[in-house]
Amino acid sequence: MFKRYLLAPGPTPVPHEALLAMAAPVLHHRTPQFAEVFRKVAAGSKVLFGTRQPVLPLASSGTGAMEAAVTNTLSAGDRVLVVSGGKFGERWAEIARAHGLEAIEIAVEWGAAVDPGQVAEALRRHRGVRAVLMQHSETSTTALHPLEAIAALTRDTDVLLIVDGITSVGVIETRMDEVGIDVLVTGSQKAIMLPPGLALIALSDKAWAAADRSTLPRYYFDLAKARASFAEDSTAYTPAISFIVGLEAVYRLIEEQGGWPAVYRRHRILAEATRRGVEAMGLRLLAPSSPSPAATGVWVPEGVDGGALTKYLRDVMGVTVAGGQGKLKGKILRLGHIGYADTFDVIVGLSAVEMALRQFGTSVVLGRGPAAAQEILLQMYQPCGGE
Amino acid sequence: MFKRYLLAPGPTPVPHEALLAMAAPVLHHRTPQFAEVFRKVAAGSKVLFGTRQPVLPLASSGTGAMEAAVTNTLSAGDRVLVVSGGKFGERWAEIARAHGLEAIEIAVEWGAAVDPGQVAEALRRHRGVRAVLMQHSETSTTALHPLEAIAALTRDTDVLLIVDGITSVGVIETRMDEVGIDVLVTGSQKAIMLPPGLALIALSDKAWAAADRSTLPRYYFDLAKARASFAEDSTAYTPAISFIVGLEAVYRLIEEQGGWPAVYRRHRILAEATRRGVEAMGLRLLAPSSPSPAATGVWVPEGVDGGALTKYLRDVMGVTVAGGQGKLKGKILRLGHIGYADTFDVIVGLSAVEMALRQFGTSVVLGRGPAAAQEILLQMYQPCGGE
Repeated sequence: MFKRYLLAPGPTPVPHEALLAMAAPVLHHRTPQFAEVFRKVAAGSKVLFGTRQPVLPLASSGTGAMEAAVTNTLSAGDRVLVVSGGKFGERWAEIARAHGLEAIEIAVEWGAAVDPGQVAEALRRHRGVRAVLMQHSETSTTALHPLEAIAALTRDTDVLLIVDGITSVGVIETRMDEVGIDVLVTGSQKAIMLPPGLALIALSDKAWAAADRSTLPRYYFDLAKARASFAEDSTAYTPAISFIVGLEAVYRLIEEQGGWPAVYRRHRILAEATRRGVEAMGLRLLAPSSPSPAATGVWVPEGVDGGALTKYLRDVMGVTVAGGQGKLKGKILRLGHIGYADTFDVIVGLSAVEMALRQFGTSVVLGRGPAAAQEILLQMYQPCGGE
Repeated sequence: MFKRYLLAPGPTPVPHEALLAMAAPVLHHRTPQFAEVFRKVAAGSKVLFGTRQPVLPLASSGTGAMEAAVTNTLSAGDRVLVVSGGKFGERWAEIARAHGLEAIEIAVEWGAAVDPGQVAEALRRHRGVRAVLMQHSETSTTALHPLEAIAALTRDTDVLLIVDGITSVGVIETRMDEVGIDVLVTGSQKAIMLPPGLALIALSDKAWAAADRSTLPRYYFDLAKARASFAEDSTAYTPAISFIVGLEAVYRLIEEQGGWPAVYRRHRILAEATRRGVEAMGLRLLAPSSPSPAATGVWVPEGVDGGALTKYLRDVMGVTVAGGQGKLKGKILRLGHIGYADTFDVIVGLSAVEMALRQFGTSVVLGRGPAAAQEILLQMYQPCGGE
């Protein structure tokens, strides 16, 4: 039988507990029954974000919440810094410019993490910067940016730190309030393990104050209105009901399986196993110095067409990994290990890539990738120790 | 997340196409809509069995159909030969004796296939044998018995050949009419890829004639009554409706993916890859000389408790393989590769067993099993060639 394995950095597979919850008859959203589910989700989301602020659910994908982050806190003509080291960094700049902001891009080599010194320097050189916009995990390059070091630059200033946590929230511990993130955004199809269609967003007190001053036009993504409804266990417009129900199932499942600390530990192990595996296969990491625990990018070997390789993996072997985006198109593979991923997803991904590379005429030695990964994956079955 | 992998020789995982079909609102069984589904299933089952006879669906597990095979064709006091080389061989003898038959067991070492010469010799020595009862694939030992050679002994005689095809039908091509099988039985939770709860049974003309003479009491499993209802696209008693609907989905899925020849080829490749994998790990096969393509039995290494090993695999690693049954309890593992199984199920099973054996203190070298399997599994992605 042709089975499909979804090993991309999102969407990730959805646990059957969540699928079944989402398939149950639809609740009406203006009922006490829904309000109860909503409250549980609200409480769970605060833990996930590490915040005492309301975490607002939006019926949109992550990009909608990214736009909401901009339109609710800034105004036309505002000057912002954008950490631009991949496709999603570029997206921040595009959103900012679409709304008449002046976006100054801090260029980072794709695959590298931004040097906080570059951000500090840009803040000094450019006067009147209102916000720094960045990814925590840049999904397109699988690099992890040094969020805390950058937050240290903005925390005690008037500059807002607006963070796309789409592939970091739920993967790495996020302490929004303590670190000093002003706007934090994530999406449902990543560590939250749901289909795409729900986004979460939270604002710091500093960001809510900025929202009062912001003059950009907004309606569907009006977060002040969302916050007012949130106080009544509801949303301003019709919520994505089945996603809220699914999210409650996910939070319960995670709680039953050791809570978020176990999830963060698992992502660390799966990511390290994947990196050791691809290195054992003789492949080079795209982001060796600051790799994301959400996904691992590797350079496709010389002479192999990365597009054809990902197509072969997907259509012939049933294994969906991500290729490169933008300037990396055709040059890399990205193996996701985010969300509903475990030991054997790593083994499947590595063994599939080995076999596919063999079919593409490279001299890969079968089994080296899985073997190196297995050594690390044994940690999945050890007690957590000091972690 | 704790994911579960079902790698036993049945029940096997169920493809989501079948799960969704079975989850649809229940049809009433005395309707033209159900009759249409029933006819499609009847046509598909004839192809599966390799017969022009009606293949009767029974709402029971395989053992019910085994009992039906006996109670519909034999009578108290009848003498039968039973090929007894495992737990399911023993079951034939138990069923026969429960109904007052004289069961003469042909003892076969567990893990070995019966020598057709033994059967020929027993048929000569014991006068008046009415039937030979055997497994094609003995699931408990993962040995494959030489069905065609035994059929050659009974085909042109009055002796019935009654075959448990529970882990062979749909795994190896079955040509019931051509080979001369008189009663053939299978169950839904194996190559048919459904949950347990449906059995299929077909009788040759010789077996139907024997049914007319059989005097054993029967009601629920009265196959003459089932055949009369079958002619009207129905069953004698309430059918397992959702299973018939699920079976139609399975037959359609198999048709879409290259038909049964592709299924048989896949089982051959997965079985060979599993055998090469476990041998590369230094484990000994339980049935080296005539292995079943449905599952692979291996001896647990000296000093390792097989029961604890399967429990660890299941409860800690989420990987359900089968242990030993009867006299093999605690001594073997059985890795299933039947039904809804593919390349990566083999890789998952082998890598899990390696890691579990490492946790149990053996000196297994990680990665050898998957590597050896990968070499064979590449065939999954080659054109079928002359096969």
